[in-house]
Amino acid sequence: MEHTYAVILAGGGGTRLWPVSRQDRPKQLLPLLGEETLFQSTVRRLDGLFPPERIFVVTAAGQAKALMQQAGQIPAGNFLLEPSPRGTAAAVGLAAVALHRLDPQAVMTVLSSDHYIHNRDLFHLSMRVASNVAAQGRLVVLGITPTYPATGYGYIQRGAMLSEAFGYPVYEVLRFKEKPDETQALELLRSGDHFWNAGMFIWKTEVILGEFARQMPGLSKALASLDHAWGAPDFQSTLKMTWESLETVTIDYGIMEHAWQVAVVPASGLGWSDVGSWDSLFDVLLPDADGNIVFKGHLVSLETSNSLIYGNHDGRLFVTIGLDDIVIVDSGDVLLVARKDKSQQVRQVVEKLRQMGRHDLT
Amino acid sequence: MEHTYAVILAGGGGTRLWPVSRQDRPKQLLPLLGEETLFQSTVRRLDGLFPPERIFVVTAAGQAKALMQQAGQIPAGNFLLEPSPRGTAAAVGLAAVALHRLDPQAVMTVLSSDHYIHNRDLFHLSMRVASNVAAQGRLVVLGITPTYPATGYGYIQRGAMLSEAFGYPVYEVLRFKEKPDETQALELLRSGDHFWNAGMFIWKTEVILGEFARQMPGLSKALASLDHAWGAPDFQSTLKMTWESLETVTIDYGIMEHAWQVAVVPASGLGWSDVGSWDSLFDVLLPDADGNIVFKGHLVSLETSNSLIYGNHDGRLFVTIGLDDIVIVDSGDVLLVARKDKSQQVRQVVEKLRQMGRHDLT
Repeated sequence: MEHTYAVILAGGGGTRLWPVSRQDRPKQLLPLLGEETLFQSTVRRLDGLFPPERIFVVTAAGQAKALMQQAGQIPAGNFLLEPSPRGTAAAVGLAAVALHRLDPQAVMTVLSSDHYIHNRDLFHLSMRVASNVAAQGRLVVLGITPTYPATGYGYIQRGAMLSEAFGYPVYEVLRFKEKPDETQALELLRSGDHFWNAGMFIWKTEVILGEFARQMPGLSKALASLDHAWGAPDFQSTLKMTWESLETVTIDYGIMEHAWQVAVVPASGLGWSDVGSWDSLFDVLLPDADGNIVFKGHLVSLETSNSLIYGNHDGRLFVTIGLDDIVIVDSGDVLLVARKDKSQQVRQVVEKLRQMGRHDLT
Repeated sequence: MEHTYAVILAGGGGTRLWPVSRQDRPKQLLPLLGEETLFQSTVRRLDGLFPPERIFVVTAAGQAKALMQQAGQIPAGNFLLEPSPRGTAAAVGLAAVALHRLDPQAVMTVLSSDHYIHNRDLFHLSMRVASNVAAQGRLVVLGITPTYPATGYGYIQRGAMLSEAFGYPVYEVLRFKEKPDETQALELLRSGDHFWNAGMFIWKTEVILGEFARQMPGLSKALASLDHAWGAPDFQSTLKMTWESLETVTIDYGIMEHAWQVAVVPASGLGWSDVGSWDSLFDVLLPDADGNIVFKGHLVSLETSNSLIYGNHDGRLFVTIGLDDIVIVDSGDVLLVARKDKSQQVRQVVEKLRQMGRHDLT
């Protein structure tokens, strides 16, 4: 695919998988699901789709070194450093300017650095379809066919069918919807015309830059001044000053919700997860016959089912008796035991620890 | 109290509080409930009742050194070493011979080294009553007034009232009963005439030696040969040989169930527990307002109640979300998470680990 580029957004801190992930040890940097880190898996997933020199990474200065070490095949110049986090709209904008300077016909694929995809072949196929549609001037979003009434994801409602490629239908997008409550999620699942928004976008740089100009004139102006200063000796100070003045806005809210010409490429069977909470690991790792998942540790159990045992080294022995739907996570310095359906509340715990001044643990 | 002696049985291994207690690290040697070990608390509880030189300890050779270090006030000669464990009947017999040689009028109080008693004053009072009754020739057992339908203890049924002392009634014992099932336990609790058998016995050495002669002639003969060899150069080899030939029998089964002249001194409000399982700690340690007990560790919790958090150092951080009636025990090398009402099943886990060859963990 000529003129196509990948942009991996890897700036986020994160405590949704606390106590393993921390503010300064975000989940993309961690080997959460195996030997590779989530970032390494994300990069490897692009093999055969983008050569390394066409993979770009937008990240924070503090994470750049670790990311570069984890993906030595990507040229150092492809790491774009944000002076401070300003949301995905600014991160996408920075990458769009960089790519548009390099190749005015660039089609950029925006990906998260910390998601999981099981079926790489299907992912490649849907990316090819999406790039074709994007090359025609559309803003394209990948729509994941929902498999349960998730309340943790935003949704995309499709409208009329626009075209078909490689057996994939492509639809017009009617609207983006915020994360629903449980009742709404069930309705959305049943409707058959809603997809999960996985934050994977594909578009030409000239098209997204046009949308910035139309919908986010402040950001657009900032991007224009960066384009002007690019390569100049004072570029870093311009970037720093420019970035400080920006509001923090997501690309979904800032652009997608009111964009023209948005298309959705549905993808089912990807085995996608945002790995956004401990219970999401049940979508990602294979449970044993009792429904238990054991990762980095050894479990001896009696009457235990549907539980996650997540240790910090292979020799760690866990013994469980009479548990169902429980999440146990040992990070070494913290031991978390939670009911599975409440495991998202680790964020409140992190908040509580910060109020207690225990920044060493968050 | 003249002629009174305490005999602490401290020979047991034990894995009922596994993974903290181990075969070679039995619970009497451990500071399970505070700064002191259970053995140290047992000895200190006798302050004012028995001077140290009248406290004897029956134990295994392997534990003697540790016990001596924990109770330096007890003369080394008061530690009686069993060559191998042969049950409480043999241990009591060995102590009875030693005391009877020292003081033919001796009244011996048999105590466990690893139980908990909250109310020391009441314990002292009931011991004085029991010693008085024992001095008259009765076999006396302390009867703990039950506070819930325990299935983990044996029971004692009282008969007619024999006497009264210090406001304590003393009853004849009708029968000893093995550990009941749940239905039976509820009946026993409701009956009003049953007590828990806490394994605390008080009797004259001459009376118990007489019962051995009547009910356990084999053991009695062995004890006579030890009495004969006592102090001689070949005593250790005689003891070793004698002990090897003995069957393993408890004093309850071997003597009490068919003894004559048994009396029970009821004790209520002692706050007694055999600390025989993790859920028993709820009888012993004070829970917080949510019903949680935290020992050696720090708990940050959301929606957590009636749970035990038991760490292995004060700095250990536990985080719990949405738990009720859960036991969490971290011994450093093993993490146990169990439903409270299933926590006794650690014994099955220990068995399983032994079958797996993991003797390092049992």
